[in-house]
Amino acid sequence: MVTARAAAARPPGTGDAADRARAVRLVLTDCDGVLTDGMVYCSAEGEAMKRFSLRDGMGVERLREAGIATAILTRERSAVVAHRAQKLGLPYLFEGVRDKLAYLPAILSASGLTCGEVAFIGDDVNDLGLLRELGRDGLTAAPADAMPEALESVHYRCRKGGGRGAFREFAEWILARRKDATEPRE
Amino acid sequence: MVTARAAAARPPGTGDAADRARAVRLVLTDCDGVLTDGMVYCSAEGEAMKRFSLRDGMGVERLREAGIATAILTRERSAVVAHRAQKLGLPYLFEGVRDKLAYLPAILSASGLTCGEVAFIGDDVNDLGLLRELGRDGLTAAPADAMPEALESVHYRCRKGGGRGAFREFAEWILARRKDATEPRE
Amino acid sequence: MVTARAAAARPPGTGDAADRARAVRLVLTDCDGVLTDGMVYCSAEGEAMKRFSLRDGMGVERLREAGIATAILTRERSAVVAHRAQKLGLPYLFEGVRDKLAYLPAILSASGLTCGEVAFIGDDVNDLGLLRELGRDGLTAAPADAMPEALESVHYRCRKGGGRGAFREFAEWILARRKDATEPRE
Amino acid sequence: MVTARAAAARPPGTGDAADRARAVRLVLTDCDGVLTDGMVYCSAEGEAMKRFSLRDGMGVERLREAGIATAILTRERSAVVAHRAQKLGLPYLFEGVRDKLAYLPAILSASGLTCGEVAFIGDDVNDLGLLRELGRDGLTAAPADAMPEALESVHYRCRKGGGRGAFREFAEWILARRKDATEPRE
Repeated sequence: MVTARAAAARPPGTGDAADRARAVRLVLTDCDGVLTDGMVYCSAEGEAMKRFSLRDGMGVERLREAGIATAILTRERSAVVAHRAQKLGLPYLFEGVRDKLAYLPAILSASGLTCGEVAFIGDDVNDLGLLRELGRDGLTAAPADAMPEALESVHYRCRKGGGRGAFREFAEWILARRKDATEPRE
Repeated sequence: MVTARAAAARPPGTGDAADRARAVRLVLTDCDGVLTDGMVYCSAEGEAMKRFSLRDGMGVERLREAGIATAILTRERSAVVAHRAQKLGLPYLFEGVRDKLAYLPAILSASGLTCGEVAFIGDDVNDLGLLRELGRDGLTAAPADAMPEALESVHYRCRKGGGRGAFREFAEWILARRKDATEPRE
Repeated sequence: MVTARAAAARPPGTGDAADRARAVRLVLTDCDGVLTDGMVYCSAEGEAMKRFSLRDGMGVERLREAGIATAILTRERSAVVAHRAQKLGLPYLFEGVRDKLAYLPAILSASGLTCGEVAFIGDDVNDLGLLRELGRDGLTAAPADAMPEALESVHYRCRKGGGRGAFREFAEWILARRKDATEPRE
Repeated sequence: MVTARAAAARPPGTGDAADRARAVRLVLTDCDGVLTDGMVYCSAEGEAMKRFSLRDGMGVERLREAGIATAILTRERSAVVAHRAQKLGLPYLFEGVRDKLAYLPAILSASGLTCGEVAFIGDDVNDLGLLRELGRDGLTAAPADAMPEALESVHYRCRKGGGRGAFREFAEWILARRKDATEPRE
């Protein structure tokens, strides 16, 4: 686990977080609070709409072009999110997952990946277990406006908030690390 | 009543506000301006949507797990809010209440609680009467962007605005006080 | 006309602007950019929704209780705004008005008021003519995020932006001036 | 191409950017991230709504009164945007354009204009090719919250963000340059 202290001592972009970024093959992302700002637009019929960023969508596309898949992992079940996952062309939508840490083996099995090849970006207390577990061998991030406990548990703290480009920022950061690795060093 | 001066002198988390937090069994919350940012999305058919925070929803859930109920108290009547209250699993929705202070006995009767077991978070001038009354024995709060008169009348002034996490912040503050009480003191 | 220089020299709340506030019997308000933040939510069917502040709605109610009417004056024609005006119980909705200054006589005729009894809050260049005309004998205001030319032409510059409480702020400022006038002076 | 260094050395409003502004006959604008804040409101049926600024709409109108057309150039295909373009009375909607630079000849052919008569405002990496090409002889801009690469490639960096008045600001800046040109110089 990467503690808050360690994260503070090792700023993003230096040390082993960059090595971890280069190993990523799947980015898991929470939906509410990461791909959205955690808000839901409710009508008399219930949860009618959520707001997504098209820039985040381009982040998904740019990751895919680099051979990195994206999947949504969420405790909610929502036709809105199912439609969004389809539109983004995601290979997986893990929804209705109450205990994200306990669900990790199912994700690894479905994708055929190891923890070291998985990144996760989450924002709330129900993400803490998985953020800490993937903090060991994988790569973790949180939006700038995540709950403090989440921000204290991750490798990369986004400057942007959930639904306001945090996912895209994390994606670009991963891609930049990969680019660093393919350029010759002096 | 806790005046603005007293609230300034006794910052949240110290003094008797913490004791009050430990006695809370029901959190009453205004809807517009507290669970939302006070905005309504209007279509040609009228008030079509309001925007809620899923983080606030998790606050309701975390309070419930600690044995504390949440209820909405609002002057409006809206199918949007009725649906939201149902989704959040609230035991009470007090709607169409023009005079919130005069309605307090009905709330105490319905819940079987005393004023000292009730918290209230409100934001506008029509909340002032009840904020001041519950300021005596109960616990009161206001979002950061509440009307000045409301902010001056409460025990706890949220750092976050209405619909942007103020309710969750108040819920977490109550839960933290309860946790303090159950941990041994040196 | 109150010029930018004069407005700077005479801050709101002092001088004759306060006297003007006490004479107001009708508050004219632009819709887009004043009662809203100037945004429109568009669907495949067109302009589907606009976002209003319930706090502004309470401002309308509080003005009414003090004997001051509110009316919307807008260049647009929109079923959304028509429904909102009805919900707020406005006595007048002046819509589809391309030249607001030229329309002033019709407003005075409909309401039976003089320029000195009319306040107007507007935000964009098409409001300038009327803002300047009512700046002579009436009372004028603009939201904090109005176009610079509008802000330079008014008696009262709101601290809040359009759709984010500017109207309520202007309403409360008018009401406070009236209250000042009814309290005995030393 | 105007590089970041050159843009920093020649601030907007001085030098040849002002001359370029006076030659503009068509303003090309990206949609998502320029006319909107890059967000999309999704329902269970998919991308249901986008949010536009009516002040930007007035910018389109003011450009038109000055003999300058506006056209949307976007990689997306959306009934929402098609409806918006129609409402704004745009002469062209170039949609579904994956490679904007490669599409430039088609735009010039359709409009009968040269590069020096075309302005373009874009915000993301897929706009870079065209921003750089039109940076040679045309005029380019980016919203304040554009991707850094876009901001580094343009003549005019808006102070306002996409969907929050960036287009209007760019339009007014162009119109002000034209006005400068028609006023006698000492």
